[in-house]
Amino acid sequence: MISVRDAIEITLANTPRQKPVEADFTRCIGTVLAEDVLSDMDMPPFNRSMMDGYALASDDALLAAAKLQVVGFIPAGSNPKFKLQPGQAAKIMTGAPLPEGADAVREVEKVRLLDQGRVVEILEPVKPGLNVVPKGAEVKAGEAVLTAGTYIQAPIIGLLAATGKVKVKIYKPPEVAILATGDELVDPHIKPMPGQIRNSNSFTLQALCSRLGLKSRILGVAKDDKNALRFKIVEGLKYDVLLMTGGVSMGDLDLVQDVLKELGGHFYYQKVAIKPGKPTVFGKVGEKLVFALPGNPVSSATVFEVIVRPALRKMMGYPVYQNPIVTAVLTEYFANHSQRENYHPAVCWYEDGQFFCRPLRTRGSGDIVSFARSNSYLICPIDKKEIYENEPVQVMLREDFYLT
Amino acid sequence: MISVRDAIEITLANTPRQKPVEADFTRCIGTVLAEDVLSDMDMPPFNRSMMDGYALASDDALLAAAKLQVVGFIPAGSNPKFKLQPGQAAKIMTGAPLPEGADAVREVEKVRLLDQGRVVEILEPVKPGLNVVPKGAEVKAGEAVLTAGTYIQAPIIGLLAATGKVKVKIYKPPEVAILATGDELVDPHIKPMPGQIRNSNSFTLQALCSRLGLKSRILGVAKDDKNALRFKIVEGLKYDVLLMTGGVSMGDLDLVQDVLKELGGHFYYQKVAIKPGKPTVFGKVGEKLVFALPGNPVSSATVFEVIVRPALRKMMGYPVYQNPIVTAVLTEYFANHSQRENYHPAVCWYEDGQFFCRPLRTRGSGDIVSFARSNSYLICPIDKKEIYENEPVQVMLREDFYLT
Repeated sequence: MISVRDAIEITLANTPRQKPVEADFTRCIGTVLAEDVLSDMDMPPFNRSMMDGYALASDDALLAAAKLQVVGFIPAGSNPKFKLQPGQAAKIMTGAPLPEGADAVREVEKVRLLDQGRVVEILEPVKPGLNVVPKGAEVKAGEAVLTAGTYIQAPIIGLLAATGKVKVKIYKPPEVAILATGDELVDPHIKPMPGQIRNSNSFTLQALCSRLGLKSRILGVAKDDKNALRFKIVEGLKYDVLLMTGGVSMGDLDLVQDVLKELGGHFYYQKVAIKPGKPTVFGKVGEKLVFALPGNPVSSATVFEVIVRPALRKMMGYPVYQNPIVTAVLTEYFANHSQRENYHPAVCWYEDGQFFCRPLRTRGSGDIVSFARSNSYLICPIDKKEIYENEPVQVMLREDFYLT
Repeated sequence: MISVRDAIEITLANTPRQKPVEADFTRCIGTVLAEDVLSDMDMPPFNRSMMDGYALASDDALLAAAKLQVVGFIPAGSNPKFKLQPGQAAKIMTGAPLPEGADAVREVEKVRLLDQGRVVEILEPVKPGLNVVPKGAEVKAGEAVLTAGTYIQAPIIGLLAATGKVKVKIYKPPEVAILATGDELVDPHIKPMPGQIRNSNSFTLQALCSRLGLKSRILGVAKDDKNALRFKIVEGLKYDVLLMTGGVSMGDLDLVQDVLKELGGHFYYQKVAIKPGKPTVFGKVGEKLVFALPGNPVSSATVFEVIVRPALRKMMGYPVYQNPIVTAVLTEYFANHSQRENYHPAVCWYEDGQFFCRPLRTRGSGDIVSFARSNSYLICPIDKKEIYENEPVQVMLREDFYLT
């Protein structure tokens, strides 16, 4: 049995980043750049006003206040066709291009309009370049605006559009196959007979992949039979990652291991000192990653968060692999009965500058009713037997923490 | 000009939650339940072990240690077909069903195996029900496991599967149309001529919608011409929400307003005391929401975060409308030149139990290079002219905060 930290490290050490693939920029949100992006133009492409105000030649107001004739109006997104002559100014909006002849902008708060707006009095002297972003100041044509390894959040989609980068190399998001095993499992639309339970893990795992931006394929349920299992596993190995649930208890595990070994697989670990989720297996068949997660629903989702998610994020090229872990104030006493590092379902919230954490009462790793109310995990170290109210604790936030 | 707070309140007051729609449960991740969900079965459906250990009849070990014959092994997900007789026990795994005749489980740490595992010595007395979750203890058939208004995170997809709820009423995610206006705009694949700029806002907004789980349709670019504008706006009003960018500067605004008024529209506000993003318009045409956002890219994305996102979340039925706002330590001096509530692009991070915030140097609301590096906004109140290093500040985190 290895520690959680070792399990994560071994997993990451054997998880390579995906190969780059070219994609339309509109489909790149949530992925990671696999190339530097150069701008094909100066940004800004013109001398741009930083303020709502009056564009002018600083020569006209360099040393003292000045009265200038207002000869035009330049809204953002317009292209001024006129040229300022000495003694002239133009009303200009934030983001708009300066007209020819202007080299500065005096903001609207520091002017006074006269003669029904035909004349503007510049109340304070103006230096060249005041409130102006010169053409190319943000980036020059040919310069890198983005570097490989950058996570593509929404503003970066805009930057790709602005620089004309319509085809983008990103790390190919892995495709995931999901396979549940167990004779007792039935599909969710079926009413279980005694001894049967509905397959829920496959759908939880699919939802977790989906929130990560990953496509996954549910391969259904493999019966506890070697041929059936081999058939499904071979199908699963067509994907980049195979997530299995169930089939890691004693007898079953042999079956899964036998099949994977016959297919040339290698196991890195088979037990992790995590609660819930001890019987967790990580292996590879060729280049394909295989995780065999416990069948208990809370266990399989928890191991996904703690071990599988970092691996998937690494494959995607993410700069950050793990869920955020914050320090929180425990709101009620917690007794830890585990001999393993305990990831206990909790509700965490942020209030008045602090995180707070309330461990949920749960009836174990099958209690999905309680688990569905959690948004985080209280992480309790192995050697900590109890934690008192108001003690600081480490809490792993889940993805939807802020929405739940 | 109204305050940011008023703008948000007015917007929310005029934004109804969407109507419920029935969807396959596998497609509900990230949406919100519009009905209570009742379990169609007891959970757990059997007496379930909370521990790895030995299932037994507590009568056999009620008062003192006992030696019992091991007659079976029950892994999780199996269905024990045998019945325990007095003096017998069965090895059982966490999550597995107790066999008939057993009413308690003694955990593996408190037993000793004898006679090559054929006999188990129970080292401490056992009370009825020890380490067992009784059938139906989490929820009884017919009871509610989930209530309307619950945000559907991944574990809830699993709970829906487990309770056989394959068709689910959710609040219908709004469909969004995105319309950029301006003669100067060209598509991203085109190299702009002098006076032209690429349309980037449409794609940033689409990416923002996509991360919210919303489908959006880019309607292209409307020229500054009433007929062209009307044609596109009529198309946009077929969607639940129309997001426009640009066309809110002085002259243009009249055009947009004229068209919307002709179509029976009503405006709630046309200027907001926010920097960047002052010329922001919110209105409705019939039941359809219309936001006309500024054309400057940082402005339009910022107004989306501060005002549009809460409205979209309310439509989706979310329990939380706004992005999280945290208290952070400012890492460098910030001078506030704005007369409006300033949402300044920042990098925020969490370290050693605290948030820190570094305001980015930016060249204004056109500076998408700098904006693309931000993951949050430093919120600077109107009356605050400067903030010193190490002062506490309010920071609005964006969605991808933890990944950037």
